[in-house]
Amino acid sequence: MLKGFRFSVTTAGIKYPGRNDLGLILSDTPATAAGVFTKNRIKAAPVILSRKRIAKGRARAIVVNSGNANACTGKKGLKDAEMEGRILSDILGIPENEILIASTGVIGIPLPMERLEPALPELARGAGKVSALDLARAIMTTDSFPKIAERKITLGKKTVTITGIAKGAGMISPDMATMLAFILTDAALTLEYSKAVLREVIDETFNLISVDGDTSTNDTVILLANGMAGNTPLHGSSPLEKAFRKGLTFVCEELSRMIVKDGEGATKLITIHLKGAKTRSEAVRVARTIANSMLVKTALAGTEPNWGRIIAAIGRSGVPVREESITISINGIELFRKGAATAKEHLLRDSLEGDEISIGVSLGRGRQACRFYTCDMTEEYVRINAEYLT
Amino acid sequence: MLKGFRFSVTTAGIKYPGRNDLGLILSDTPATAAGVFTKNRIKAAPVILSRKRIAKGRARAIVVNSGNANACTGKKGLKDAEMEGRILSDILGIPENEILIASTGVIGIPLPMERLEPALPELARGAGKVSALDLARAIMTTDSFPKIAERKITLGKKTVTITGIAKGAGMISPDMATMLAFILTDAALTLEYSKAVLREVIDETFNLISVDGDTSTNDTVILLANGMAGNTPLHGSSPLEKAFRKGLTFVCEELSRMIVKDGEGATKLITIHLKGAKTRSEAVRVARTIANSMLVKTALAGTEPNWGRIIAAIGRSGVPVREESITISINGIELFRKGAATAKEHLLRDSLEGDEISIGVSLGRGRQACRFYTCDMTEEYVRINAEYLT
Repeated sequence: MLKGFRFSVTTAGIKYPGRNDLGLILSDTPATAAGVFTKNRIKAAPVILSRKRIAKGRARAIVVNSGNANACTGKKGLKDAEMEGRILSDILGIPENEILIASTGVIGIPLPMERLEPALPELARGAGKVSALDLARAIMTTDSFPKIAERKITLGKKTVTITGIAKGAGMISPDMATMLAFILTDAALTLEYSKAVLREVIDETFNLISVDGDTSTNDTVILLANGMAGNTPLHGSSPLEKAFRKGLTFVCEELSRMIVKDGEGATKLITIHLKGAKTRSEAVRVARTIANSMLVKTALAGTEPNWGRIIAAIGRSGVPVREESITISINGIELFRKGAATAKEHLLRDSLEGDEISIGVSLGRGRQACRFYTCDMTEEYVRINAEYLT
Repeated sequence: MLKGFRFSVTTAGIKYPGRNDLGLILSDTPATAAGVFTKNRIKAAPVILSRKRIAKGRARAIVVNSGNANACTGKKGLKDAEMEGRILSDILGIPENEILIASTGVIGIPLPMERLEPALPELARGAGKVSALDLARAIMTTDSFPKIAERKITLGKKTVTITGIAKGAGMISPDMATMLAFILTDAALTLEYSKAVLREVIDETFNLISVDGDTSTNDTVILLANGMAGNTPLHGSSPLEKAFRKGLTFVCEELSRMIVKDGEGATKLITIHLKGAKTRSEAVRVARTIANSMLVKTALAGTEPNWGRIIAAIGRSGVPVREESITISINGIELFRKGAATAKEHLLRDSLEGDEISIGVSLGRGRQACRFYTCDMTEEYVRINAEYLT
């Protein structure tokens, strides 16, 4: 059981009436705080504010809303986010600059403060009345299921818990960050270590997924470590550091998979295993190009083993590959090798009907590899996104 | 009337029986030849062969098939393409290395030589019996209409004609080249000039379009200039060079527009006018990012003036833009300016129902600009590409 974190949700009617759209995460003690935010040059007001506040490495609370991104809302957007924090600071009696803000939803419409402000007292009063899962539900937008992952780890004689909560289904192509994700742990971590491990684990998890190639203005991952498990604070060379990192990777990996699995309109989770690259960044570049190819994604939606589209994507990735050195397999069946088709597509048809597909690519250039998650692209994706505002 | 070029088409049954799928362009005299080919690292056999042959700057014929790309077909693919040329060379009595080959269609399946070879004698015999439009029809794959553009230009006392024929509707994101396009002119051009002007005009036309962000393995643009108009050969500093360049640009621009207008499943041609960039490559980078954003393309399919998705795309383009300096308009209505929404979307709704949409973006960073064509993305695109092989 995660120690010392309480959750609350309420209904502010931000976009639609009658659904929980406002959530609060409250740590009983000041937590060591690290964050990674969108690298999109256009940053939402809550991103600008939280990035500034988290710089001091200490936070007590995160308030998050769905239904409105508070992005491209100018000075009013920043003032609104500050006001939200100030009101909660007064009610909760915690320093204003230890409250982090996150928002997700439509871009370019000011937050409806006339509905949000009156909901804050109830939000504050509710702390502890709901679970992390309820909070995960309150931050859903086009998500079809709440995303939460948890792992317990033994650090010497102490047991620590890592709980991750995320949202995201569209505008997913985190470059150096991701959609909203809050990682909470009762482990004690030094600030320096929490920053380093968060960045490193994100590079292996959230940064290797794509739904549609579009990077959001609101991407945010926050790690709060309140130390209530009572372990000796972990630092980069702690003997137990590897165990914590493994747990954190598990939680972030699970959340990443869930985001892609819930990709707007998606029916299949596609895992790309890319190997034989000269460098890791080369591996990621090729994998990302395949992952974002509309032709690859639509072929798989139609259960077509069209490896020609995969090799065309590899060829335009910018990496100087040689056709003769490339091997491509789908669900373990080798389809292209040594410059020629193997004509084994018939072995595949049934397995492509499943809801998970694995693509194996070897570039034959070196020993670096990566794993990348994407999803298929269906007519439903177009329907969802053609009717978003209406 | 274009002088000295003859066309032929026939039915080889390459992918489907009973439709013209093989075409021949024959110049009565050896033509000055320049070509630009896909920069995809994976190149189809006809691309490899034609690129080699065009290096000497002289060609008599182009043979082109639809229904099969002859890409990723290894050594057999190259042999097949060579054999195709050799047979035509024998029948037509022209040098083998003056015959260029082009193919378009599915990747990874060998050319059905048992059906293609017997069709070649009839193809050769038919030269002159059909029009350029018939040839444009024979090279269609998922295209819904044939693409042809023509312009007459007066060069001093001579009238020259430039005729362009193209195909393409999907896997369209030419980087340094484009889909299949054959530009024929009876003007006389020096080889050096024909290479330079083709490259420069392509950079302003075919290289500024996208349907789905996927670059083909078969992209080819060939310019044949047979000189039968009798003008003094044009070179880079000819006084009449500008007139020819203008005509060539017109033809390439028209074909580019047609390809995007015929984008798979597309219902709208979208023109992005990008200005206020520091450099031209910066302008192209931002325009291309908007053009390839699935969220922008699906919003416009749904006639939603979702400028938030446009600014999110601008922000992830890699150009260090500032939100306050960006202006965004759609169909001439300013929607975002000085960091805030103008709330004028209501003025737009009707005009978004039309089949052409213009997006104006100013970055406020400098004086460079570009024009980029893209199209909306509909459920029909997914349907077409999920059922391509079957």
